[in-house]
Amino acid sequence: MTSMGDKGSVQTQTKVLSQGCWTEVSCPCCVSKQVEPLVLIQLSDNVQPVTKRWLISLIEASKRHGGAALLTHPGEDECRNVIVVSAPRCTLLRATEDLGLCKKYHNEEMASFSYHDRDNFTNVDDMQKFLTLVERQYIVKNELDSLQAQKKQRIPGVPEAPGVLEAWENICQKLVRAGVIKDIFPLHDQQRLNDLGRRWYSKKQIWGQPLDAIQSYFGSTVAFYFSFLDFYTWALVPPAFLGLVLTFLLPGGGGVVKEQAGEGAMEEDDDGPSVSGHMVQAVFSMLWSTLFIELWKRRSSSLSHRWGTLNLAERFAGPRPGFHGTLGLNPETGRLEPLFPEWQRQLRVGLVSLPLVGLLMGLVVLGMTCFYHGEALVQGFHQDSGSLFSGVLLYMPSMAHIVYTNMLGNVYHAVAMQLTEWENHREESSFQNHHTTKVLLFTFFNNFAVLFHIAFYKQDLPLLRKRLASMLIGNQLVNQCTEVVVPFIVDRFLSAPHKKEQEDDLEMDKLRAQRSLPPYPGLFAEYIELLLQFGYLSLFSCVYPLTAVLLLLNNITEIRGDAYKICKLFRKPFSAPVSNMGVWQTAFEVLGFVSVMSNCWLLLLSPRVQEFCLEGGISGKNIILVAILVEHVLILVKMVLAFMIPDEPDWVRIKREQIEFNSMQALGQQKL
Amino acid sequence: MTSMGDKGSVQTQTKVLSQGCWTEVSCPCCVSKQVEPLVLIQLSDNVQPVTKRWLISLIEASKRHGGAALLTHPGEDECRNVIVVSAPRCTLLRATEDLGLCKKYHNEEMASFSYHDRDNFTNVDDMQKFLTLVERQYIVKNELDSLQAQKKQRIPGVPEAPGVLEAWENICQKLVRAGVIKDIFPLHDQQRLNDLGRRWYSKKQIWGQPLDAIQSYFGSTVAFYFSFLDFYTWALVPPAFLGLVLTFLLPGGGGVVKEQAGEGAMEEDDDGPSVSGHMVQAVFSMLWSTLFIELWKRRSSSLSHRWGTLNLAERFAGPRPGFHGTLGLNPETGRLEPLFPEWQRQLRVGLVSLPLVGLLMGLVVLGMTCFYHGEALVQGFHQDSGSLFSGVLLYMPSMAHIVYTNMLGNVYHAVAMQLTEWENHREESSFQNHHTTKVLLFTFFNNFAVLFHIAFYKQDLPLLRKRLASMLIGNQLVNQCTEVVVPFIVDRFLSAPHKKEQEDDLEMDKLRAQRSLPPYPGLFAEYIELLLQFGYLSLFSCVYPLTAVLLLLNNITEIRGDAYKICKLFRKPFSAPVSNMGVWQTAFEVLGFVSVMSNCWLLLLSPRVQEFCLEGGISGKNIILVAILVEHVLILVKMVLAFMIPDEPDWVRIKREQIEFNSMQALGQQKL
Repeated sequence: MTSMGDKGSVQTQTKVLSQGCWTEVSCPCCVSKQVEPLVLIQLSDNVQPVTKRWLISLIEASKRHGGAALLTHPGEDECRNVIVVSAPRCTLLRATEDLGLCKKYHNEEMASFSYHDRDNFTNVDDMQKFLTLVERQYIVKNELDSLQAQKKQRIPGVPEAPGVLEAWENICQKLVRAGVIKDIFPLHDQQRLNDLGRRWYSKKQIWGQPLDAIQSYFGSTVAFYFSFLDFYTWALVPPAFLGLVLTFLLPGGGGVVKEQAGEGAMEEDDDGPSVSGHMVQAVFSMLWSTLFIELWKRRSSSLSHRWGTLNLAERFAGPRPGFHGTLGLNPETGRLEPLFPEWQRQLRVGLVSLPLVGLLMGLVVLGMTCFYHGEALVQGFHQDSGSLFSGVLLYMPSMAHIVYTNMLGNVYHAVAMQLTEWENHREESSFQNHHTTKVLLFTFFNNFAVLFHIAFYKQDLPLLRKRLASMLIGNQLVNQCTEVVVPFIVDRFLSAPHKKEQEDDLEMDKLRAQRSLPPYPGLFAEYIELLLQFGYLSLFSCVYPLTAVLLLLNNITEIRGDAYKICKLFRKPFSAPVSNMGVWQTAFEVLGFVSVMSNCWLLLLSPRVQEFCLEGGISGKNIILVAILVEHVLILVKMVLAFMIPDEPDWVRIKREQIEFNSMQALGQQKL
Repeated sequence: MTSMGDKGSVQTQTKVLSQGCWTEVSCPCCVSKQVEPLVLIQLSDNVQPVTKRWLISLIEASKRHGGAALLTHPGEDECRNVIVVSAPRCTLLRATEDLGLCKKYHNEEMASFSYHDRDNFTNVDDMQKFLTLVERQYIVKNELDSLQAQKKQRIPGVPEAPGVLEAWENICQKLVRAGVIKDIFPLHDQQRLNDLGRRWYSKKQIWGQPLDAIQSYFGSTVAFYFSFLDFYTWALVPPAFLGLVLTFLLPGGGGVVKEQAGEGAMEEDDDGPSVSGHMVQAVFSMLWSTLFIELWKRRSSSLSHRWGTLNLAERFAGPRPGFHGTLGLNPETGRLEPLFPEWQRQLRVGLVSLPLVGLLMGLVVLGMTCFYHGEALVQGFHQDSGSLFSGVLLYMPSMAHIVYTNMLGNVYHAVAMQLTEWENHREESSFQNHHTTKVLLFTFFNNFAVLFHIAFYKQDLPLLRKRLASMLIGNQLVNQCTEVVVPFIVDRFLSAPHKKEQEDDLEMDKLRAQRSLPPYPGLFAEYIELLLQFGYLSLFSCVYPLTAVLLLLNNITEIRGDAYKICKLFRKPFSAPVSNMGVWQTAFEVLGFVSVMSNCWLLLLSPRVQEFCLEGGISGKNIILVAILVEHVLILVKMVLAFMIPDEPDWVRIKREQIEFNSMQALGQQKL
């Protein structure tokens, strides 16, 4: 079915681009009748033909001559300021080995692809079956990114000032800075996209998602997000069930909620069940979060094996484009490339980034303190004077706070990007992880500061419950609107007639249509939404047991909404093969531990527990000590549990060790 | 110098065993004029000649015929019930590859040894230079241990009942059970041992130890212990210095000690410095423990690189002798061997071992509670009656407690060994780690239960200080006596004349003398002593700042004492190559984290802090909350610090990644 789609799509694309204009290939294995357009380089409108020719010849040139060894197509007449790029078989296969991708060996096992041994891999003659579309596109991008000037030279057709390339300078980055290249993006394959959409967010498909198809079309980064979302949604079922039981069935558990919602009005006398209901909820949520994250790790590693990304060789590939350092021999691989000592990076992270991030977080707290202070001041003033002026003044603190928070957010984002650039990470994944960590910390802090303030400083549980419920419901409504309803209306009703028209048009317009779509904003917003959800759930859920139910309802629509968004509303993103969720997994794990502290604290504050202690004659000091003890024991239990559950299923471990053993054996044999 | 020693030693050994009686070797590369005796198999006195001949032929047989491919010598006339074993060059080299040892390549870099590539390694023609003595001996032991019956057969000369070997049964284990083999141990090389002793514990050598020589004679397990002891002793200098300053120079710091020693008698009024002195000590000790363990990890990995154990292949070697399972193909290596599923082992550890160990620890607590209870009861009775009988009764609780603790200890040791055997670990290191962890937990708990009881339950700081000081001084005196003074006296004065006599005797007697030495009891007692020390220091040192000074003094003599002991008083132990201290490193690390909790708690209890709070008008509840906050922040700081300091120096990381890159490359090439 997938291969049918592949063939079909190539045929439709041939209407767009005349096959004759593609680069001619000399290598016999790379000759094919139909070349598949993979990536589009969008040049600026006023680019000189000489510059375009120079760039094309560079992209076509062999690696020995400093080129990228790719195929180019100069675009049809109507559309002169583009270069369409594809890749010949040899380049694809060599890049597959360099990436460290695993592919199916002739014995049906996954094995690290080796160019020398290519004939023993299945489907190696048909690139469209051997590599996924997104892998082919990523390889093209990678090759383009690795173009370097062999010596100091001028770019033809570009004025002197921005147009001089230093030796070893990255050419694509330079051309973007010089305004020659406006954008580089992978092309959608409409037929496969429609197929995928039908299997993904149509009405027929409610349980589960076509993860393999997502991986092959959008890449493992996106596929990991949707797998996680899927896994997380299913994992919400037990806490949602427990929440329902505690709220509606158990009289004691419900008693706590009702009584506290009534702000201290006593309705029932049965302390035992209410305290124990609270306890059950807290202990359950702690164990649940550990189990959830450990089982996800297992699932993640088996997905990674299935998608061939278990053994990526990013460390041994060339550095990311933004990396700089003194030119030298890489001690590990022996290749000539920029070098930057690891300890220096560690020092930059530890002595500059960490304190700066801390400082900015401090400013968030400062802002919040000023806000509360200002509000109290203004309210006092208003009560004293009661004038119209003081009434207007009442809105000032919150407005000032909103402006301040927004400004701080913008400053923070700029600083985070600058800092991460300056830390000079060699690998793209390391860069992403450090950048994500910084932004994540801030966003999380910004969102939870108010709740933490209410819970830990004001110690006002009813207010916390109200705030939590309103944030949960409010956020979800806003999210659902912006993410699902609006895009759906825009797509269905506003752009539908336009689309109909297009289909009769020349297919070249599709290319143009893709150019007009906004670039995909990345998964940060999606992940942070899940993380905040998980935060509400694990940090404060014992206050509001229905959290899990609300989240479950939200996520079921969220899956379809996100799917629709990525398929229809944005340009296709490039996607590097990855072996896990990276720093997001750690963030969820850390949150699990923080939740133990927060739950113990909330339990301590809960009026029923306080009352229970008073009746039992336990002093306030002792109950705190008991709470500390319980907290430490629970953290210990969590750690033991996390240690006991292996991070990968046995069969994945065995496959991984097989690969290690084979490469050890090979090392011994090779030196012969 | 070492090679001189090697040659000399072989010449002296040749006086012992006539070279003609050794197994004749056919392989041309293995022929050598002088065979070096490595390992002694001590048979029982009544062993039948037919059994001995059968065993010798088995050891000599090639691997293809189910033998061990070693060289044997049946012993001289006077000494019939021994087999002396050595190893030919081929067997040694192949085993070196199987162990995954790194050796010096012709380009002076360390590289995983490969038999096919042997000619490119330095010293490969001279086994005495290429492998250390302890490596050669370990290889012989390993080969003997891997002898398996090819089919069901009888052992000649052994009665039917114990003398039937099942197919694939381990032969050495069987012969030990059947009483044929009494013992297997490696032979000392007197000349090298004397050289080593001279460089190690003589008066000339005070700063530092000859670690490389220790590694080459006693193996990396022992060498890691002494390296750690050395590193730890140097690391004690800063806390000792701080302790001295706080006690004698800073009036406030000293004030705390004096005042508290006087049990509350107020001598000075300056609260500020005393509280801050306390704080300085506590915070310093927490940061110090993290830095210490992180820097040790770096040192450990560079030692491991230097000793060629960075890349051990224990996982891919055969299972340890005690391992059992259903016979099958190992999925990783493809070899036929017993298999046992990992998840089943995990279940056994988690569902049986963990609860049982917890139960036994609970019994320790129960015993202590009963003891305190009983003592209070008896004291009350004595005060009431005052008779002789009640006076005698006063001693009953502590006697009962001692008996109970000893019995429990014995039961625990037996249970720990049984449980670890039953967990059925495949690798020796995994077995050792699990066994050590169990015994370690118990010993630690047993030793610290009293101190924890005083600190956390009785909350009596002066008593804690007294107890700590007496335990420290008492333990050290006892240890120094048993470890240094007694052995020294025994060796110097009691056995000296005997030794003189021996030197004129036939050298064969030396062999006999070695047999009479007790086997080396292992490093457990040594490590646990260090761990308890570290525990006193990091858990309670802010109560008694001079701890570090006492420990420093103790360790300087400890190093020499331990060295003398292992060289002179015991049989040489077998020693597997290891790449780190294993579970001990983790134990020190965990203790570092526990120390944060304990220090925060002790600070909270300290009368000066309490008083300080009273004066500042801070309620008891709030000060506890502040302490919790401080504890959590400090743990966070420790974790960030531990994460920031890389576990291996950059140059070790690069070498390790070089090896990884090379084996990846090799895997790609080999499939050609």
